[in-house]
Amino acid sequence: MTDFQSDGEGSRIPLELYKKLAAQGNQVRVLKTEKADKADVEAAVQLLLKLKMEYKAVTGEDYKPGCPPSDNSVLQEDPPSANNEEDFVDPWTVSSSSASGVDYDKLIVRFGSSKIDQELVDRIEKAIEQKAHRFLRRGIFFSHRDMHQVLDAYENKKSFYLYTGRGPSSEAMHLGHLIPFIFTKWLQDVFDVPLVIQLTDDEKYLWKDLTLEECHHYAVENAKDIIACGFDVNKTFIFSDLDYLGSSPGFYSNIVKIQKHVTFNQVKGIFGFTDSDSIGKISFPAIQAAPSFSTSFPQIFKGRKDVHCLIPCAIDQDPYFRMTRDVAPRIGFPKPALLHSTFFPALQGAQTKMSASDPNSSIFLTDSAKQIKDKVNKYAFSGGKDTIEEHRKYGGDPDVDVSFMYLTFFLEDDDQLEKIRQDYSSGALLTGELKKYLIETLQPLILAHQEKRKEVTDEMVKEFMTPRPLDFSY
Amino acid sequence: MTDFQSDGEGSRIPLELYKKLAAQGNQVRVLKTEKADKADVEAAVQLLLKLKMEYKAVTGEDYKPGCPPSDNSVLQEDPPSANNEEDFVDPWTVSSSSASGVDYDKLIVRFGSSKIDQELVDRIEKAIEQKAHRFLRRGIFFSHRDMHQVLDAYENKKSFYLYTGRGPSSEAMHLGHLIPFIFTKWLQDVFDVPLVIQLTDDEKYLWKDLTLEECHHYAVENAKDIIACGFDVNKTFIFSDLDYLGSSPGFYSNIVKIQKHVTFNQVKGIFGFTDSDSIGKISFPAIQAAPSFSTSFPQIFKGRKDVHCLIPCAIDQDPYFRMTRDVAPRIGFPKPALLHSTFFPALQGAQTKMSASDPNSSIFLTDSAKQIKDKVNKYAFSGGKDTIEEHRKYGGDPDVDVSFMYLTFFLEDDDQLEKIRQDYSSGALLTGELKKYLIETLQPLILAHQEKRKEVTDEMVKEFMTPRPLDFSY
Repeated sequence: MTDFQSDGEGSRIPLELYKKLAAQGNQVRVLKTEKADKADVEAAVQLLLKLKMEYKAVTGEDYKPGCPPSDNSVLQEDPPSANNEEDFVDPWTVSSSSASGVDYDKLIVRFGSSKIDQELVDRIEKAIEQKAHRFLRRGIFFSHRDMHQVLDAYENKKSFYLYTGRGPSSEAMHLGHLIPFIFTKWLQDVFDVPLVIQLTDDEKYLWKDLTLEECHHYAVENAKDIIACGFDVNKTFIFSDLDYLGSSPGFYSNIVKIQKHVTFNQVKGIFGFTDSDSIGKISFPAIQAAPSFSTSFPQIFKGRKDVHCLIPCAIDQDPYFRMTRDVAPRIGFPKPALLHSTFFPALQGAQTKMSASDPNSSIFLTDSAKQIKDKVNKYAFSGGKDTIEEHRKYGGDPDVDVSFMYLTFFLEDDDQLEKIRQDYSSGALLTGELKKYLIETLQPLILAHQEKRKEVTDEMVKEFMTPRPLDFSY
Repeated sequence: MTDFQSDGEGSRIPLELYKKLAAQGNQVRVLKTEKADKADVEAAVQLLLKLKMEYKAVTGEDYKPGCPPSDNSVLQEDPPSANNEEDFVDPWTVSSSSASGVDYDKLIVRFGSSKIDQELVDRIEKAIEQKAHRFLRRGIFFSHRDMHQVLDAYENKKSFYLYTGRGPSSEAMHLGHLIPFIFTKWLQDVFDVPLVIQLTDDEKYLWKDLTLEECHHYAVENAKDIIACGFDVNKTFIFSDLDYLGSSPGFYSNIVKIQKHVTFNQVKGIFGFTDSDSIGKISFPAIQAAPSFSTSFPQIFKGRKDVHCLIPCAIDQDPYFRMTRDVAPRIGFPKPALLHSTFFPALQGAQTKMSASDPNSSIFLTDSAKQIKDKVNKYAFSGGKDTIEEHRKYGGDPDVDVSFMYLTFFLEDDDQLEKIRQDYSSGALLTGELKKYLIETLQPLILAHQEKRKEVTDEMVKEFMTPRPLDFSY
């Protein structure tokens, strides 16, 4: 990390950093134009990334070329993430001070969930009579609430259903968005249960400067990417809140029930709402909670109140469901169970998650093979050493290396992954080679997704999104 | 009024009053059993009513036989209504210190609405080419917002629609509930415009200790009384929120739009919500606002955004629509116009409005002829003197006399009403005789209502409550 001196005038430090960043950005461009050594270019890029991270830690803002820091960007004496080693996780913000990302064991303690341990993974494998998904094997889905109860019910031939969702804030979906859907599809296949998928277009309208029509449009577009993950139309209902709330007295009834039993004090405590927030935001959590209750889908569950719900989601969504679990017994429903995933790291490092609002942090599902290659090569934060000699001697750090982290998500073969880990740690495998493995893993994956998405017709979308019975009897 | 002395121990005064009330209640019973002179009985009853009003003013609670005042019922040094001459009006509470009721001219100033003056009444008569309804002639509908603009539009052949509603908190509807519906029916007839009627079963669920099913049931039952007022099914849509919200994406979309543009601070200021209120209550005002916008009813208005809305309602509902008028331009809709009515006084006096939760304050639409007679005779607060001699000499006070007030609502003939006023003021007309006029006015009215209600079939209710186009083209 570059030294920077505190000169007592806090607001000048961000400006110094900004100037350094601008200079380094230019340097990278020059090196590329001059077709300098690849290693030199990469080193310059890495320095640029490091400066960007410092800038963010100091100012709380992302570095944007052409946008000097505002007067508000003063040096924070005690930035919560840098000094307190406090990870910050809520549904709208995820950040960590550590390059290896959020400390998930601490988060389990803080949130009061339970670790998905080997015993639970074994139990799942026994119930489904096959190997557990790599996400479970590798601790990507790492935490749960009440999963043992779901398995108890399943083993007693009692059904459950799956519920997951997406906030359709733009058409641009990225790799990180796929994680819950990949896992949920696997759960649907191995347990053979119904699935509902909520697209919270109303939420995005309430939170963002978008029109209702834009949010609804994003919902329908995102549905195509979700369908391309391979869900079974006869077992899956995908719905836009704006459409479904206005088509289902059952859904609205549950929303009102939940809203009656949650106070403003409670949502203030859970979500940090304030008096200047809109009444739409304040009451929205009830809408994300309501699909946890089977009477929200009378066309599927025929009025049954007692069908348990299992929610695979990223851990930052947990607050919604802590609230839901608190309300459930008071309104006569079983508490939903949860399976929580870790965050998909941003390209520039696991301090934050990949985010569509920051295009350089993301690999989009619409990226070309070249874009994937360039993004990984240019932006994926490396745990390798600055020079080949040092790297051979000391090895790389897979715990902070974003390319390696992505391989844990997407490389199917456990043995191959382990070998890569060992070789990278020892220095036998270079950063460039590691990145090549990743690129060769991601390119076919994303290409295949694009092909499948092309095959999704408007009629298919309409079918998935029409309230109708599914192939299960209740 | 009976003297009562402040002895410095505030809590003993309510107890003294309570004992006096109990004694007077006994006295009345004794007189009736002994078949004493009617005038004596009536005088005793009047004294009882006066004591009850004192008790309420002092303790803030209704006198209940067998329920001595709680320790909280201390003499308030400065009860807001008694000393400040402050009328209290919000959607949940209406009270006045004055026996003649709320000072409506002051309320107009406080709320910022406009008086319905003779000029406006004349203009209405000109537009509809007939005499204005007695409610307009007599200042029962006394205040408005933007009625001149509605008439401008109407005179330019631009349509408007009517919107009114009811909170279905029980099956028991009383005379006071009929007032907005009687007037709205007249408006529908003379202007020939569509009408939507909202039954806020969700609101009652949120505010009361009732189940959703109970609230919905009350909504359907109340719809029968509303239909019995004579609305034209081809021009009227009656809807339960619980049904319609879950059947209309247009309605839900407008609710979300409104919710995005109203903050908790605003509803705190307007409605007095607090942090311990449920998120359901906090967001409910958007649901009462949304029918003011024509795109909430796409089946009626075919997506037109610009159809003006006119809302006849009691003045205590105005806060909802001040909020609505504030939001409307920000979301691209015209502001709804309003016609406000005064309150229908409680039997025991115009300090409060008739309320179903206080059966002795109310004449219910289900009351028999005998019940009507007994209630008026026993409970209707009299502006007459305690003895016939005094009454002949000094006359009665029609401004505080509840029976006379009721006649202003229900006696059609202006001249007859004026004669009664003069004769009562002069003492020529006795209380008993005045009450007889009222009884003979109310009995046929309520009987006719009951007959019409009997003719309302479940099929008719279903038709009124089914979202469908009305006999107007847009």
